[in-house]
Amino acid sequence: MKTLKIPEATIIRLSVYSRYLTEVDRKGIITISSGEIAEGVGVSPAQVRKDLAYFGEFGTRGVGYNVKDLNRHILKILGLGEEWNVTLVGLGNLGLALSMYKGFRERGFNITSIFDNDPEKIGTLVNGIEIMPVEQLEEVVQKNHTQIGIITVPSEVAQDIVSLLIKAGVQAILNFAPGVLNVPPHIELRNVDLTVNLEVLTFNLRSGR
Amino acid sequence: MKTLKIPEATIIRLSVYSRYLTEVDRKGIITISSGEIAEGVGVSPAQVRKDLAYFGEFGTRGVGYNVKDLNRHILKILGLGEEWNVTLVGLGNLGLALSMYKGFRERGFNITSIFDNDPEKIGTLVNGIEIMPVEQLEEVVQKNHTQIGIITVPSEVAQDIVSLLIKAGVQAILNFAPGVLNVPPHIELRNVDLTVNLEVLTFNLRSGR
Repeated sequence: MKTLKIPEATIIRLSVYSRYLTEVDRKGIITISSGEIAEGVGVSPAQVRKDLAYFGEFGTRGVGYNVKDLNRHILKILGLGEEWNVTLVGLGNLGLALSMYKGFRERGFNITSIFDNDPEKIGTLVNGIEIMPVEQLEEVVQKNHTQIGIITVPSEVAQDIVSLLIKAGVQAILNFAPGVLNVPPHIELRNVDLTVNLEVLTFNLRSGR
Repeated sequence: MKTLKIPEATIIRLSVYSRYLTEVDRKGIITISSGEIAEGVGVSPAQVRKDLAYFGEFGTRGVGYNVKDLNRHILKILGLGEEWNVTLVGLGNLGLALSMYKGFRERGFNITSIFDNDPEKIGTLVNGIEIMPVEQLEEVVQKNHTQIGIITVPSEVAQDIVSLLIKAGVQAILNFAPGVLNVPPHIELRNVDLTVNLEVLTFNLRSGR
């Protein structure tokens, strides 16, 4: 299956559909229409049909989609259904919030190590994980075959941490630190800027859409 | 200026460009090319040009854009340059992280009230703001002319909080609680799901892009 040309906005919506389908499945519902998915997640039915059409026809006209099958299919597309080892670097408030975030584990993202440089935090436990000093990052991340790194450190040290993570074998990085990071082309980097979300809201308020 | 048809992905990138331009401006740089912006934020030069083209021609061929002018223009498009009153409901780890987030204030988003229902938290100060009980939300939000609400409460109470915020006159809501919320059509709602970011990464890893 060729999936290279799927826009990122579609991937993001698929992720949202999948979470909704998991909820619906838990309620024991067997089939669902694109209209019901649309209503459940707050996008248009046409958008849902268009997004699902990227992956060929797997609904039945007039009946809809089998909830479990559709969800399994989307999860496979998203590279889920497998388990990912995640490391988190920087245990400030945001780092702490992310370490405790239940949604990650539910979707197969297991935070298996946490690093900080604060002597008061090192050695303490968060969610059963012992906080380790950054000096141990390379060794531990390598040993755990950690694929993903989450960075919630101050901007000034973010590039150093990125370089350390890449040296240790991490393939993908989710960065919450402001500023621009350099990574080689084979590394997936995603910058999350929490302010952007507020700016989309104010744009929509201003433009009256 | 007609801005209704601008895709959300463009708005998000504009927000990122603007933050980069602010950095560049602070370094005293006067003009910048679309290629330099592209390199600075990690998107293609063609994408930058396409995004900026929504707002007409305001660069000079061969010279590039005036950094200050371009940034001012983008900020205006995004409804920034003005100040927004923001309330935050739910002072867990994520709520605490967001209350302390410097990026909000820098972009004109001022958290002016924080609510929680934990008696241990009520009356304490975060960033100089006294935590208040949810019972006072309606009165305080109304009095402050608060336009935006950020929700970081457990899912079970999110809908109740949304209804309270709307009753108090909030126009836009940024929701971090999982699950689906119902709002009337005139309210801007944006759901932030932190897991989605990891799923985009794993999709990209799997599809090899």
